Amino acid sequence: LIAFYDDNHISIDGDTEIAFTENVDQRFEALGWHVIWVKNGNTGYDEIRAAIKEAKSVTDKPTLIKVTTTIGYGSPNKANSYSVHGAALGKKEVEATRNNLGWPYEPFQVPEEVKSHWSRHTPEGAALESDWNAKFAAYEKKYPEEAAELKSIITGELPAGWEKALPTYTPESPADATRNLSQQCLNALAKVVPGFLGGSADLASSNMTLLKAFGDFQKATPEERNLRFGVREHGMGAISNGICLHSPGLIPYCATFFVFTDYMRGAMRISALSEAGVIYVMTHDSIGLGEDGPTHQPIEHLASFRAMPNTLMFRPADGNETAGAYKIAVTKRKTPSILALSRQKLAQLPGTSIEGVEKGGYTISDNSSGNKPDVILIGTGSELEIAAQAGEVLRKEGKTVRVVSFVCWELFDEQSDEYKESVLPSDVSARVSIEAGSTFGWGKLVGSKGKSIGVNSFGASAPAPLLYKEFGITAEAVVDAAKSLF
Amino acid sequence: LIAFYDDNHISIDGDTEIAFTENVDQRFEALGWHVIWVKNGNTGYDEIRAAIKEAKSVTDKPTLIKVTTTIGYGSPNKANSYSVHGAALGKKEVEATRNNLGWPYEPFQVPEEVKSHWSRHTPEGAALESDWNAKFAAYEKKYPEEAAELKSIITGELPAGWEKALPTYTPESPADATRNLSQQCLNALAKVVPGFLGGSADLASSNMTLLKAFGDFQKATPEERNLRFGVREHGMGAISNGICLHSPGLIPYCATFFVFTDYMRGAMRISALSEAGVIYVMTHDSIGLGEDGPTHQPIEHLASFRAMPNTLMFRPADGNETAGAYKIAVTKRKTPSILALSRQKLAQLPGTSIEGVEKGGYTISDNSSGNKPDVILIGTGSELEIAAQAGEVLRKEGKTVRVVSFVCWELFDEQSDEYKESVLPSDVSARVSIEAGSTFGWGKLVGSKGKSIGVNSFGASAPAPLLYKEFGITAEAVVDAAKSLF
Repeated sequence: LIAFYDDNHISIDGDTEIAFTENVDQRFEALGWHVIWVKNGNTGYDEIRAAIKEAKSVTDKPTLIKVTTTIGYGSPNKANSYSVHGAALGKKEVEATRNNLGWPYEPFQVPEEVKSHWSRHTPEGAALESDWNAKFAAYEKKYPEEAAELKSIITGELPAGWEKALPTYTPESPADATRNLSQQCLNALAKVVPGFLGGSADLASSNMTLLKAFGDFQKATPEERNLRFGVREHGMGAISNGICLHSPGLIPYCATFFVFTDYMRGAMRISALSEAGVIYVMTHDSIGLGEDGPTHQPIEHLASFRAMPNTLMFRPADGNETAGAYKIAVTKRKTPSILALSRQKLAQLPGTSIEGVEKGGYTISDNSSGNKPDVILIGTGSELEIAAQAGEVLRKEGKTVRVVSFVCWELFDEQSDEYKESVLPSDVSARVSIEAGSTFGWGKLVGSKGKSIGVNSFGASAPAPLLYKEFGITAEAVVDAAKSLF
Repeated sequence: LIAFYDDNHISIDGDTEIAFTENVDQRFEALGWHVIWVKNGNTGYDEIRAAIKEAKSVTDKPTLIKVTTTIGYGSPNKANSYSVHGAALGKKEVEATRNNLGWPYEPFQVPEEVKSHWSRHTPEGAALESDWNAKFAAYEKKYPEEAAELKSIITGELPAGWEKALPTYTPESPADATRNLSQQCLNALAKVVPGFLGGSADLASSNMTLLKAFGDFQKATPEERNLRFGVREHGMGAISNGICLHSPGLIPYCATFFVFTDYMRGAMRISALSEAGVIYVMTHDSIGLGEDGPTHQPIEHLASFRAMPNTLMFRPADGNETAGAYKIAVTKRKTPSILALSRQKLAQLPGTSIEGVEKGGYTISDNSSGNKPDVILIGTGSELEIAAQAGEVLRKEGKTVRVVSFVCWELFDEQSDEYKESVLPSDVSARVSIEAGSTFGWGKLVGSKGKSIGVNSFGASAPAPLLYKEFGITAEAVVDAAKSLF
């Protein structure tokens, strides 16, 4: 890796010295880089060439080439000032700069000399390509299996039947945390998808993200698939974007606590904006994480990502929904997926399914007929079980109740009006949502007459069952809210 | 400043070498710190004392004391392993550790020797306090004005009538960007509030945050009030939290583009969680910023902060609303305020007021009677003017129209049910919202039958008027939406 650092001493607000005193060379050396300083970046072409040559010769570490330049070099009146940073030079100063630099050509005209100089790369490139193709053909002949893997990574075509590797569950399967169910999915996928790899920002054993069949990806072991990002959430997101955009068949996942998305939101927005289908494995998804307290308990995060364009925000309730979320996440190569997963154990619920997750919102149980239940209870993740329990209580009291999982709002939004009406009939205004997070946004789904149960303050530090009771995230609260609507 | 660095080589996932190769000493030296290395942090008390003494003697730069230790020192079976980082030792290992360290006391028992050693500081502290009080009394006598300023900073009591310094506007006042109107407020406040200070993350001339009566706060000029944070959004938020929590009368503001809150969200959440009333001046608040394009255009950010607990998210529409937002922001010392401000010029609207802002949502014009308008149009910030224009069109067509500004949702939520009903009567279901941002969350205010006009994709790069037309953020769109509801 060779990186260039433009050392022009100007920031938007003026000379960098008003806010910047670090020794850049020393800092990069401290990080293990080889550093070269080109002192005359304005006209020292030979110096720059020599620096690149030197950098290429250093193969055991990356090189930073610090190039000291004058910002706006050539502009007689604006060079070396912050006014060149954020605004165009203007017609007059462009003219003066052209004269100053002796540049006689029209705007956007590429001189013949430059064109032919660069055109020499065209045949060069064609030769390199056909050379590569020949080599690959030979490789494919000798190692058909490995070549198929490589091809799959380059083209992004997934191996036939890959999704069959995903685990499925029945209501009799043991209760488990969705972070653990997620690890079952990760390990299943790594076996069948050759470009599937990832890791955690120093929380692998909490996020449950280790791929058991593989070792650590390190300098000496680049064939391994467990990435050790260290405590670097933003860097982790940025690296994952790079892996994703490098090749459509590379499918990276990365992990931390859901609340720490606050430290990597810039990188996550770039995933969405640049259509990088990174899989974000975000565990410890609510006050349900318990004793680590409010600094570690996400409240507004589900809402904040539901508002972000081109982002799939999943909150699976059990094993089948976790597998469903992964199925879609792996397929969506141009949209990042975020999986909010529980630390605490959750029951495997009757009615959940991979097909349901694909619709984003779907009915998991209903004792009504004619699409007219007395009340619709909507939950996500760890609260779907609570909605189901409240449904049972109300049914015993003779009510008709539909319980709906809203595992991914964005996927539901994509469904037909008919489907939406079949899940949330507009005639039924008695609706209650339950989610251990901000109620912001639920108004759209429960309507003006419905009720939303959630957490609109910061959390607290205590065991999960105590917190759920304290914050009123209970089946009783759902039953009470439903009764207030009859 | 003296900082200690615990150099124990263990992270949650194991030895730090799996993800960490930097030379910490050299890195801090590159940042201008004095660095001392204590090699035996487990038992080298004299070394630690000597290091603190040396650090105190270095007065021209901060000191980092790197202390090499063994994590879990004394635990016979878990010392020097990652298992000590995230989990308690357990009863058995605590017992073994006590024995190993020769610690005979009961849990939570402080030995007499320790107690008396520390108690010696009580009279010492009392003496220092009365000394300070005497000095301050003398100072107050000699410099009553300066002493009053200092007292105001220490106690947080604002000078009487401070709010009268805020500028007011009439519909005849010239159209202007709310970022410019914000600068008028900042400068007015700095004149009357002694602890008012702040700055920008290298965008002062774009955020319009310079205090004209003051110079730059630098090493040699600590009495000045323009802080130069550099390109350090997270650091800026963290520093502002520190200033805020240091003293109730220190009122810091900090600034960047609204979209760059993504880089400081962690610090902003800490403002809310630790009740630090930082004022966040966030300009370039929508696609209205134009040519910088989607990387610079916030879409989901208003929604994401509306969902954050203990946070006031303001989006003022003109001069009076900007002044109103500042009035509340200065008063709310335990809640951070975020002001989303426009780059583009906005008209001064009839009907806006500081008192209105204090209610969060309020009517700016209405030609109906009996609290039964045909339609309610709701806007914020730059789109309030568009809502007002659409209102005029509909009124000319004989409709009764209420135009409502929703400048701060959280303040509206705090109002009485009567007030809420007087602004948004539950009988009127024909409601249209317009805001150049994600429509996520508006469902609650427009209800199941209303319509929300907004931007649910990423932006684009073009002059603002073109973008507004392209994304359908227009008076015509509001009129059409309203007509579809009659």
